[in-house]
Amino acid sequence: MTRVVRTRAELREALAAAPRPIGFVPTMGWLHVGHRSLMQRARADNATSVVSIFVNPRQFGDPADLERYPRNEARDVEICGEEGVDLVFAPTVDEVYPPGFDTTVAVGAIAKPLEGAARPGHFDGVATVVAILFSLVDAERAYFGRKDYQQLLVIRQMARDLAIPTEVIGLPTVREADGLAVSSRNVHLSPAERAAAPVVHRSLMAAADAWRRGERSADALRRVTRDVLAAEPLAVPEYVSVADARTLHELETVDASALLSTAVRFGPTRLIDNEALE
Amino acid sequence: MTRVVRTRAELREALAAAPRPIGFVPTMGWLHVGHRSLMQRARADNATSVVSIFVNPRQFGDPADLERYPRNEARDVEICGEEGVDLVFAPTVDEVYPPGFDTTVAVGAIAKPLEGAARPGHFDGVATVVAILFSLVDAERAYFGRKDYQQLLVIRQMARDLAIPTEVIGLPTVREADGLAVSSRNVHLSPAERAAAPVVHRSLMAAADAWRRGERSADALRRVTRDVLAAEPLAVPEYVSVADARTLHELETVDASALLSTAVRFGPTRLIDNEALE
Repeated sequence: MTRVVRTRAELREALAAAPRPIGFVPTMGWLHVGHRSLMQRARADNATSVVSIFVNPRQFGDPADLERYPRNEARDVEICGEEGVDLVFAPTVDEVYPPGFDTTVAVGAIAKPLEGAARPGHFDGVATVVAILFSLVDAERAYFGRKDYQQLLVIRQMARDLAIPTEVIGLPTVREADGLAVSSRNVHLSPAERAAAPVVHRSLMAAADAWRRGERSADALRRVTRDVLAAEPLAVPEYVSVADARTLHELETVDASALLSTAVRFGPTRLIDNEALE
Repeated sequence: MTRVVRTRAELREALAAAPRPIGFVPTMGWLHVGHRSLMQRARADNATSVVSIFVNPRQFGDPADLERYPRNEARDVEICGEEGVDLVFAPTVDEVYPPGFDTTVAVGAIAKPLEGAARPGHFDGVATVVAILFSLVDAERAYFGRKDYQQLLVIRQMARDLAIPTEVIGLPTVREADGLAVSSRNVHLSPAERAAAPVVHRSLMAAADAWRRGERSADALRRVTRDVLAAEPLAVPEYVSVADARTLHELETVDASALLSTAVRFGPTRLIDNEALE
């Protein structure tokens, strides 16, 4: 039976009695099959599974983007129940950020390029809320999707640097049958945009194919991705990156393990995806 | 018997078996009677007492200041032994900040004036190292001297905001017989400077007396402090503040509880002190 708690005090009380280890899945709600895969792993690997549902205002630069972020807590709690999650933490903004809150956790170089450059302040908001949630839940393990690959690296760095004893685990991106990475934001796509959106994954796959056939020039791989995206009129690429998979520095030559990644706009909706070359 | 550990792993192992609650005194070493008072309280209130000795490079803006900060670990460990401290954590810089370390914990408004203005980056360094040490030690309580009053407020804000379950406790400033606040930096004073240094406390006492006699103008209280300091040729005031004791905003009128504080240079040595009006 899934229990829902809303305050730090209720959470602490619920966790005091919880069998160890604890597996934690932090989410912004609007749960989908990607989240389900994280919950399943949290449940399989731990004695207690905890999901947080919190649309974190500090990681949205654009108030309109925050406003339109989809929400349906009743359905989210139902999904957590279906997945056998033990505890759902669904706090208010004031419960996470009490009045007078004034602290920022900032990760350096790894948070600067790509999503960090496109969304100033975004990763400060992510690192700060995850530091708070990690303190509150005190889990042995926390699970994140690799779709948000840079976010995973930022959180891993933050947790390691601040000596937070929660292990940060990244799980594979879950995709629709046509390859589109599952994301809460997909709900905003019009039917035509939804039909066009698989081009994002296809563009990365094309570059990954070129790499497998021996292409090692990062510029050539970026061009392959951009060419596939350019063939779809509804797709407006924001960036196409071939970067070192650990540092996210852009590469000239792909000799070690690399990350292909892209952010593409479809109307007002911004989708991201990535593919590791290893 | 005081045990000394140097690595995160040794610390975790030593603390796993430690009776609760744990009382923690973070220090930069060169321990003095001020630290002893913190240790005594940590020991009295907790089943296990832990002292860290770590000169934190991130809180020094000036490399020369870091270089000349006094150190004597053997004597520090002896003092911890005399005070019955259970565990001393004396890590290397790499143990606190592993290679690739790249995270900053920054506190906002409370860290901006006074010491924050005089020493850019200082409180980021303090908040970051204390967040790490709090994670590592996971104490129920941590003890700090009120001599570093703004530091106490910064750490309290950081711990509250990041939901760190360590209670932050401030203890009264310990003074020499002539009123000089005990500080590791006092060792740098020449005999003439040492003879002059009690003027810092005297200047604050003069303003506190004026306040007790009914003076409520913050400017008048600042002037009383400055006049006393001006009478001592070796004292070079850096700032004289009459601020709200919770926000550290400078006051015009002292109607609620206020903090008198000052930073004064004696040659190359910078001393700070404060007095609460309540």
